[in-house]
Amino acid sequence: MRGGERQRVFAGLDLGGTKIQAVLMDEDGQVLCQCRRATPQQGGPPAIVEELFATLQEVARMMKLEPSALTGVGVGAPGAVDPAAGVLLHAGNLPGWEGPYPLAEALSKRAKVPVFLGNDVQVAVTAEARLGAGRSYRSMLGVWWGTGVGGGIYLDGRRWTGRGAAGEIGHIVVRRGGARCGCGRRGCMEAYAGRASMERKARKAVERGEKTRLFDLMETHGKDRLTSGVWQKALKQEDGLAERLIARAIRMLGAGIASAVNLLDVEAVIIGGGLGTRLGEPYVERISQAMHPHLFVPQRPPDVRLSGLGELSGAIGAALLAGPTAEVASRRPSRGAKGEDRRGDTQSD
Amino acid sequence: MRGGERQRVFAGLDLGGTKIQAVLMDEDGQVLCQCRRATPQQGGPPAIVEELFATLQEVARMMKLEPSALTGVGVGAPGAVDPAAGVLLHAGNLPGWEGPYPLAEALSKRAKVPVFLGNDVQVAVTAEARLGAGRSYRSMLGVWWGTGVGGGIYLDGRRWTGRGAAGEIGHIVVRRGGARCGCGRRGCMEAYAGRASMERKARKAVERGEKTRLFDLMETHGKDRLTSGVWQKALKQEDGLAERLIARAIRMLGAGIASAVNLLDVEAVIIGGGLGTRLGEPYVERISQAMHPHLFVPQRPPDVRLSGLGELSGAIGAALLAGPTAEVASRRPSRGAKGEDRRGDTQSD
Repeated sequence: MRGGERQRVFAGLDLGGTKIQAVLMDEDGQVLCQCRRATPQQGGPPAIVEELFATLQEVARMMKLEPSALTGVGVGAPGAVDPAAGVLLHAGNLPGWEGPYPLAEALSKRAKVPVFLGNDVQVAVTAEARLGAGRSYRSMLGVWWGTGVGGGIYLDGRRWTGRGAAGEIGHIVVRRGGARCGCGRRGCMEAYAGRASMERKARKAVERGEKTRLFDLMETHGKDRLTSGVWQKALKQEDGLAERLIARAIRMLGAGIASAVNLLDVEAVIIGGGLGTRLGEPYVERISQAMHPHLFVPQRPPDVRLSGLGELSGAIGAALLAGPTAEVASRRPSRGAKGEDRRGDTQSD
Repeated sequence: MRGGERQRVFAGLDLGGTKIQAVLMDEDGQVLCQCRRATPQQGGPPAIVEELFATLQEVARMMKLEPSALTGVGVGAPGAVDPAAGVLLHAGNLPGWEGPYPLAEALSKRAKVPVFLGNDVQVAVTAEARLGAGRSYRSMLGVWWGTGVGGGIYLDGRRWTGRGAAGEIGHIVVRRGGARCGCGRRGCMEAYAGRASMERKARKAVERGEKTRLFDLMETHGKDRLTSGVWQKALKQEDGLAERLIARAIRMLGAGIASAVNLLDVEAVIIGGGLGTRLGEPYVERISQAMHPHLFVPQRPPDVRLSGLGELSGAIGAALLAGPTAEVASRRPSRGAKGEDRRGDTQSD
């Protein structure tokens, strides 16, 4: 806080299919507090906006603030975003979300505070690049390993968005004509490594009579799908099917990420996302090893590192949408953060 | 030519395994004249330097100049280059070239003119980006389809070199665990689409008793390998094996280039190289079609275009190494060519 000035506080909301993660952040990029609430499974966009507001109130109250006292709020959402309009165009993973909805405007009216909207993976990768495991690199590739496999690219300290849809590393083809992907195409890295694809594969294996603890664990823990936590528990119990599917995912992540490195020759690869964060360092190391046979310059591999902000990366990245840009940049002048385009922090899922 | 000033003339030499292509270029990037000589197959680096000098003399003489009257000479060489030192580190496709050799210094001493060295594919892609088919785009991917499959990346009007080895699109993995590549790895795009790989595959097919005109055509035309011209002639004669191997190459080029586009979302893909240039527009269109099933945003594909400078792209790019930068840039101020790094115009094959 600067003498005489009122402290500027930003909120970030990471909107997921099952939960909303919130943080408050100061203008130096420090997280002040955080909370988490469940995403409403009924009521569609209006119910979700109401719950975003309730989450915002809860996190603001931790600093004895009203939402309207915040300098700005950023929301990272799982889907295609029009950042300039603040519209979430579609979001397959959000219950009851069909067609475009002016999320930023609706929440802004409710909370009486400026709201900025971005794509969840994109804001998380930005957070890692600026404040997390990527902050000491001038070029990096973020690989968000979760339900799908998303990504983001930082080159010369700036995010590369292409024509708006760059970073879709999950849809690098690692086996032409191979497994069917959730996107409808074949052989994408995500068709092997995405959690949704792995769950489909696991269900088919069970139908064929294969034994696994995966679905028992799912039910025991009150889940209706194979969450990252379920995979982690199954791996700890040395479940054969879980180990086999994760090994297959890692092989394909290795080939796909190495392909991207051969093309871009970045300094670092940052692994995040639900599965990446949950499985942690040993699996990041396995991904790094799986890349090695495919690297064109194997004697000089990129650093492969786990997300430094973990489960908060999305909420922190969302808070960055709301503005603590110049301040954070001033701490790391070499990153050239002033060139960053807030509106670019978004794109399709 | 400007009043009172002596015209500045640059030479570019594209050094290949079988031929040396030369151009003279003025400071506006216009080609003044060109000639071609055979690469000596014996005598190693000294013989090649001598022939580069002879080629330089021949092309300079067309403008009634001595080599020493040129402003500068650029050489594009097929291999890994240290541009600052002017050293060709290794060059598998050049006869008798083993280990590093100070090519720029040797030619500079012989010709009494400054010599700059770059990688052949990299300088060709630069030429296309600045003066050829890529000049109206701010972001592009060059794919050089020849003996191998090389590439280069232009983002925001500037070449992206990563840590020095970016652009190796030939070593994107399109089929993990698939065909053995010349690089020693498996499943690279080049293992299916590179001319050297296709020739190995064709020889094996013949050993298995398959009929093809490919090797007859090779001998008839006095070649000792399947050149781009031989492939073209076989395709014209509807040779079944040639058609099958080219179709396979195109499928894999489609998957690999689409992967790169999904990652980078560039505006344009420029197809060049020996095979690309020789086979021309209909095959560029086939590559574009083969990309389509793999594009993450298929409703907005990049433009896919044939190299605009054709067989001269390498020599023109080499000439650009020697300096007509500001002048060319001033004709297209939006491309920001001033940011270009001459030393970056080089990298491994």
